[in-house]
Amino acid sequence: MSSTLSRAETWSLLTLSAACVGVLVKTYQDDGEPLFASLALGLAAFAASYAMIVWLGDAFIAVGRKGTDMSKKHKVEIPETMGAVCGVVYIFAIIIFIPFAFRRDIVAATSGGGSKDAVLNVEHVETGRILHRFPLSKLSSYAYALISVALIYILGIADDIFDMRWRHKVFIPAFASIPMLLFYYVDFGVTQVVVPILLRPYFGELLNLGSLYYAYMAAVTIFAPNSINILAGINGIEVGQSIVIGILILLNSSLYILPLSSTTTSPPNQATMDVHLFTIYLLLPFLGVSLALLKHNWYPARVFVGDTYCYFAGMVFAVVGILGHFSKTLLLLFLPQIANFIYSAPQLFHIIPCPRHRLPRFNARTGLLEPSVTTHPPEKPLRKPLVPVLELLHALHLLEVKKDESGRIISSTNLTLLNLWLVWRGPRREDRLAIEILSMQMCVGLLGLWVRHRLALLVFTQDNRAVGGSHV
Amino acid sequence: MSSTLSRAETWSLLTLSAACVGVLVKTYQDDGEPLFASLALGLAAFAASYAMIVWLGDAFIAVGRKGTDMSKKHKVEIPETMGAVCGVVYIFAIIIFIPFAFRRDIVAATSGGGSKDAVLNVEHVETGRILHRFPLSKLSSYAYALISVALIYILGIADDIFDMRWRHKVFIPAFASIPMLLFYYVDFGVTQVVVPILLRPYFGELLNLGSLYYAYMAAVTIFAPNSINILAGINGIEVGQSIVIGILILLNSSLYILPLSSTTTSPPNQATMDVHLFTIYLLLPFLGVSLALLKHNWYPARVFVGDTYCYFAGMVFAVVGILGHFSKTLLLLFLPQIANFIYSAPQLFHIIPCPRHRLPRFNARTGLLEPSVTTHPPEKPLRKPLVPVLELLHALHLLEVKKDESGRIISSTNLTLLNLWLVWRGPRREDRLAIEILSMQMCVGLLGLWVRHRLALLVFTQDNRAVGGSHV
Repeated sequence: MSSTLSRAETWSLLTLSAACVGVLVKTYQDDGEPLFASLALGLAAFAASYAMIVWLGDAFIAVGRKGTDMSKKHKVEIPETMGAVCGVVYIFAIIIFIPFAFRRDIVAATSGGGSKDAVLNVEHVETGRILHRFPLSKLSSYAYALISVALIYILGIADDIFDMRWRHKVFIPAFASIPMLLFYYVDFGVTQVVVPILLRPYFGELLNLGSLYYAYMAAVTIFAPNSINILAGINGIEVGQSIVIGILILLNSSLYILPLSSTTTSPPNQATMDVHLFTIYLLLPFLGVSLALLKHNWYPARVFVGDTYCYFAGMVFAVVGILGHFSKTLLLLFLPQIANFIYSAPQLFHIIPCPRHRLPRFNARTGLLEPSVTTHPPEKPLRKPLVPVLELLHALHLLEVKKDESGRIISSTNLTLLNLWLVWRGPRREDRLAIEILSMQMCVGLLGLWVRHRLALLVFTQDNRAVGGSHV
Repeated sequence: MSSTLSRAETWSLLTLSAACVGVLVKTYQDDGEPLFASLALGLAAFAASYAMIVWLGDAFIAVGRKGTDMSKKHKVEIPETMGAVCGVVYIFAIIIFIPFAFRRDIVAATSGGGSKDAVLNVEHVETGRILHRFPLSKLSSYAYALISVALIYILGIADDIFDMRWRHKVFIPAFASIPMLLFYYVDFGVTQVVVPILLRPYFGELLNLGSLYYAYMAAVTIFAPNSINILAGINGIEVGQSIVIGILILLNSSLYILPLSSTTTSPPNQATMDVHLFTIYLLLPFLGVSLALLKHNWYPARVFVGDTYCYFAGMVFAVVGILGHFSKTLLLLFLPQIANFIYSAPQLFHIIPCPRHRLPRFNARTGLLEPSVTTHPPEKPLRKPLVPVLELLHALHLLEVKKDESGRIISSTNLTLLNLWLVWRGPRREDRLAIEILSMQMCVGLLGLWVRHRLALLVFTQDNRAVGGSHV
């Protein structure tokens, strides 16, 4: 990989950056829509990540952050953990956005420490021209979201450097979720959920889950990053799936903001809009850095993304889902990851033997990927009760087993969505597989969103698109 | 270095941790003083850092984070960058403290997103039993302080891994200060300073520095971490000086909180107390992790601290100084570092040749440290105009030059405070030098604080200990 940008790249990125700076300056001077600033920051984050990934590749290799792509004919070493670059750019983009997103609603003529009485100037601001910015009270949500992201970034780097064991790394997101959950605890403290109509005779309209609710939020936060980390192994799949989820969340949040509400007639309220604007502001720079990374990580990959990126991406989703109060909808957008996790579970929990790597096998003769297998040699045969199960799954086309002439199972495909797809659709090239999986993910996600907004009215009394606030 | 704790260490740390957990639980249940919780967290942070530094040493060496101590007879490789462990423990301690420090002053019966009207419950809280906690409005200060620390931690790790060049790394603190400064901008926005009486005829009582004030704050933030990073090179000096500064700030803040005001009769006001409590809460865990690191980094060092620690420590000080509105007092506590910087400047800016390392020279025969020198060989002699300057400095005992028989200067001692001290006081053992420098620093700092609180009344109309808020 060349460590300099081509002439065309340099000029494109420079032009893009200049345009972004222009938009940012203009937006700030005119007290313009923060959305424009966020968009400009997203594009600037793209440009910065794109360039830095190219520039820093050699430095990463020099300090040993490198790996070999096993699914290529010509094995060359390429930089690893390049998602680390994206993470830093993202954090800076989110920080630089602060003055665009927030308005000072109390003009405090205090002597710094706030000792003199604050001069309230709320009316001016409320009726003034900068109503479209968040009040300062949201500054904390924003900060704690950022702290959780920064923390998972730090722990992700530690994982990439020290190559932690699975049983340790699974809990990295749990640690990183602490600031967000504690913030939720001291600031909102809402632990009630709306009960579906069907169950209301038993539980009432609102059910207070108390500490169970925190356990639920922690579970979401642990699941999101790890599930992205598990659906991995071919070029572009980690970043690609994150971009798809990001776009789907963006779409969902746009539904609350665009003035074309179809299910109800009442206009969306301010608090709901704020929550979803918050989500959009956190996602646009994320999509910016991710697209830059995808450009370099797409087949044939010139860089690897590292666990850091997977954790970081999952945490961004968990944070917007939880602080944006749509964690159930979020899980809907993780359906392929959930399916992959459930499908993988027998190997993850060592019910079926699990090799170190389960990524699809590269056939150097054809240049195509094939399902990788776990062998069950005679000296270490498959456990008895599993044989009929595997045979049933084979019959249902949910995996593929190979038998020797005596009918003994000698190998079975590894239990990942990628391998299953190859079982279903036959060997194919790496980029083709990635495109198909990502398309499938996009379709499932769109269907999920449609179901969620259409059918919510059947299960609850109203779709929260209109009433806002949104119990989770 | 053994990677397991001794039996005695294990039991001491376990007992300490258990006691801390006890205090934390009790404080939380009783709505007790956050100060006790902060103290307990500081001790718990000490225990955690102490143990993790021991446990993780081998892992750091395994991934190449290791170095050789040049000032020892037996050269062994010891782990580098162990300050990284302290940084993570510190960040977690600060996060865990959140529910102890803050009270929910608005009990919001909202549906999560804040859509329904908030039920104000302020009276109950203001008059209630938990008045000694911060209101939620301070949650942001706390968060942005933490973000700046997390950011310098991330950039410090990058520096340690990639071994950045000086001209790049000098600006690491500037980047990390962005969140704090932007927060200051959107939240306080106060850029006035109180003018000393002498200058009031010209500038009035308050002078609005505008953007100059932000430049000043950025300069403080750039200076603090780098100045600690420059006064380095012998076992324990980086951590030691940070602990001394930390203790001095703690002392200064205690003056505002303890009810023994001597300069005035009015009681300290709430806002001033809050600002200084804030400082204390950020410093106690810092002292905890630093003391643990000092234990392992003290002569003969079993670990090195790394640039990460120096940046991290400096940032903690800059953050409390700026958000606590006592940045001028802070600079007073950095006098030895300022002196070292000024003294080093001719070499830092390459007016006098600067070797790669300037740490004192280890004399293997005596086991003592001696001033290290820069040689000026005949083929690359000292520039002409510098000769009389160096001779003057030599005559003033501010450095030591060596001449050959023709009277030409062939070497001069490197311009660091450590070398100068050795010029003054003669060769001495590494730990002796560290103790003397740290004692000197403590004395200068105490004198500085005394002058600041005694003489402030002569220059300003009042010492802000009593009126609070405190212009900077």
